[in-house]
Amino acid sequence: MSKFEATVSAPVNIACIKYWGKRDTKLILPTNSSLSVTLEQDQLRSKTTSRADASFVKDQLWLNGKEEEIKAGGRTATCITEMKALRRKVEEANPDEPKISDLHIHISSYNNFPTAAGLASSASGFAALVSSLAALYKLPSTPSELSLIARQGSGSACRSLFGGFVAWNMGSKADGSDSFAEEVAPQSHWPEMHALICIVSDDKKGTSSTAGMQRTVETSELLKHRIEHVVPARMNAIIEAIKRRDFDTFAQVTMQDSNQFHAVALDTDPPIFYMNDVSRAIVAIVVELNRASVARGEGLVAAYTYDAGPNAVIYTLDRNAKTIIDLLASYFPSAIGNFSDPFGLFGGNGQERGSLRLPEGFNPAVAKVYESGGVKGFIHTRVGGGPRVLDEGESLLRSNGWPLG
Amino acid sequence: MSKFEATVSAPVNIACIKYWGKRDTKLILPTNSSLSVTLEQDQLRSKTTSRADASFVKDQLWLNGKEEEIKAGGRTATCITEMKALRRKVEEANPDEPKISDLHIHISSYNNFPTAAGLASSASGFAALVSSLAALYKLPSTPSELSLIARQGSGSACRSLFGGFVAWNMGSKADGSDSFAEEVAPQSHWPEMHALICIVSDDKKGTSSTAGMQRTVETSELLKHRIEHVVPARMNAIIEAIKRRDFDTFAQVTMQDSNQFHAVALDTDPPIFYMNDVSRAIVAIVVELNRASVARGEGLVAAYTYDAGPNAVIYTLDRNAKTIIDLLASYFPSAIGNFSDPFGLFGGNGQERGSLRLPEGFNPAVAKVYESGGVKGFIHTRVGGGPRVLDEGESLLRSNGWPLG
Repeated sequence: MSKFEATVSAPVNIACIKYWGKRDTKLILPTNSSLSVTLEQDQLRSKTTSRADASFVKDQLWLNGKEEEIKAGGRTATCITEMKALRRKVEEANPDEPKISDLHIHISSYNNFPTAAGLASSASGFAALVSSLAALYKLPSTPSELSLIARQGSGSACRSLFGGFVAWNMGSKADGSDSFAEEVAPQSHWPEMHALICIVSDDKKGTSSTAGMQRTVETSELLKHRIEHVVPARMNAIIEAIKRRDFDTFAQVTMQDSNQFHAVALDTDPPIFYMNDVSRAIVAIVVELNRASVARGEGLVAAYTYDAGPNAVIYTLDRNAKTIIDLLASYFPSAIGNFSDPFGLFGGNGQERGSLRLPEGFNPAVAKVYESGGVKGFIHTRVGGGPRVLDEGESLLRSNGWPLG
Repeated sequence: MSKFEATVSAPVNIACIKYWGKRDTKLILPTNSSLSVTLEQDQLRSKTTSRADASFVKDQLWLNGKEEEIKAGGRTATCITEMKALRRKVEEANPDEPKISDLHIHISSYNNFPTAAGLASSASGFAALVSSLAALYKLPSTPSELSLIARQGSGSACRSLFGGFVAWNMGSKADGSDSFAEEVAPQSHWPEMHALICIVSDDKKGTSSTAGMQRTVETSELLKHRIEHVVPARMNAIIEAIKRRDFDTFAQVTMQDSNQFHAVALDTDPPIFYMNDVSRAIVAIVVELNRASVARGEGLVAAYTYDAGPNAVIYTLDRNAKTIIDLLASYFPSAIGNFSDPFGLFGGNGQERGSLRLPEGFNPAVAKVYESGGVKGFIHTRVGGGPRVLDEGESLLRSNGWPLG
């Protein structure tokens, strides 16, 4: 008897044009289009194994080795139901295909980044779930078609079905059939695009993005203006910038849209704050770095963006990555102890790190030095590819169908 | 020979509907109307003596005992020139009046609050300057007429020409002649309105409001929506709330407008942050205090508002002032050591302070306790009256015309 199983890994994506607000909370249809960069899976990914077997008595899911209930009518159940329906169509169209759509499934998923880092894993997690089921079921669906289902798990998950630079078109149909993700440019188009994630310490549990965005939709008068008048132009501008590999425009729009997302969060009643004093310090450092560069007649060096938490993601081109890490490490020296240097910028020599020569014209007084804390660590990564189907040897399920670990 | 001198004190005002943006930077014409509460001068005021004398060789100004240059064409010079012109009209209309409009003047001004507190003194300062000159020159001008001149010193100064609750109508004329302040309700209308100022520590010099608001006008797309579509309705709502003494609506609109002002500051490029983590903690405490009160079937207890800095001003009714001070002192115990208790809430017994019984249903986990720092001190005050002409004995100039101190 065959084993029906597939293991897939899927990437994290970080939006440059932010998704904030649903027009349909059940189908997860957004109030505006959004755009993201998919990050390299070597640093950040969710890996998921799905298996269908006649011996299983119910659908079961384990996240990082811990079972999570699949609630009837919940987001995970919706994704599984939709994927089984697509398998059923394959079986109906091709009677030679094994009838596995009615079998229960076991799903095991792990992230290669600590939950404590405060990085949202729902995007990569639902993308990996949907992709693993698509591989298990040998579906002919395109990534955009799968994105319609991943979207119903977690809105931003739809963008993790692609590598490179990805747009999520808000669509206009009530059934959500035109609210899908598509590739704007592949990873190979602009491989120099790097990202540095600054893991910021926080002693406060923030508002969940699901609850927060609905409160913004209900109470922020500024959100309406953002949706109707600001985002459409920014989507066009950043897509054009990506196509031209125009870092200045890309950076400018990315920072403005991060600011505006946090502005509408603050315009919410009661207000929502995701950025803290350390986040603000990183903004000040990036702004000054760019100001000094422009004053020297050069272009922008970096673009910060913040999601629903205090962590900064800084986009930059590869040639500037070392400058930025050096600079940030001079303000947050303890962070460099938690930095794996995957691109070998520091030659494997820990002592070389933090040996800072300030960029010309840079005013260091824009932020104070955090002798300890502030930033817990850096993750250096770059634009990456879409979900990958992995070898059988990567399975997260034992031969008996129960999870490893 | 007569001495031509007047001493006046003028109050601080704190806006509920915020002024942020100029449509004319020279005349200081705002992009939206605003509304403020004038605070009691016992706690916060600027006191100014102006004298005209034939022996003076030039116009001179001292702030807190230190001479400040009166720059030609600057804001102070504009106010003085306009006031002298009004005096000239009086002299022309009444030949018996002494000819003092051509004499040089000496002006000495003191604030009764420390500059280090981070409280803007430009509003009370320019209101006191203009009021002292109006008294010196025995002008027949109404406070609204004087507000046209104070406005050219510092926009928000026009609102300090009145006590109680004050609107600054943005006006529409290019010459600014309809951009004046007027009383919405006098101090006596709602004397129960108290204010608690929390002086928040900050290690960062913020963007000046003059520079910040112009950057917002130039770069924030959300500001346009605020100006055109949000503020007009809020002005009507809060004026009606004040007339009805409806604290719930007053508080709701005040908090929403503070949030929106900081939202448009954040939507500025580069972004402007005035609130810090301590400001955010105070927001969380006030939000939770109100939530618990509403959950008990009662109304709102307090309204926070933040100007261009991290300090919180909390409006509340007198009966709730002790509860709020007690509560805040439990999070910021060191602040209570810097609290003068002008209304005798704690019976002069320092030990009684901070003996907290949490409001019913209040969740204390919304903020962490700052064992030291965070809030440097509290100033408890209430709605107050407009500028006061003081006795000769209050003069800040020596008999020889030079400043005291």
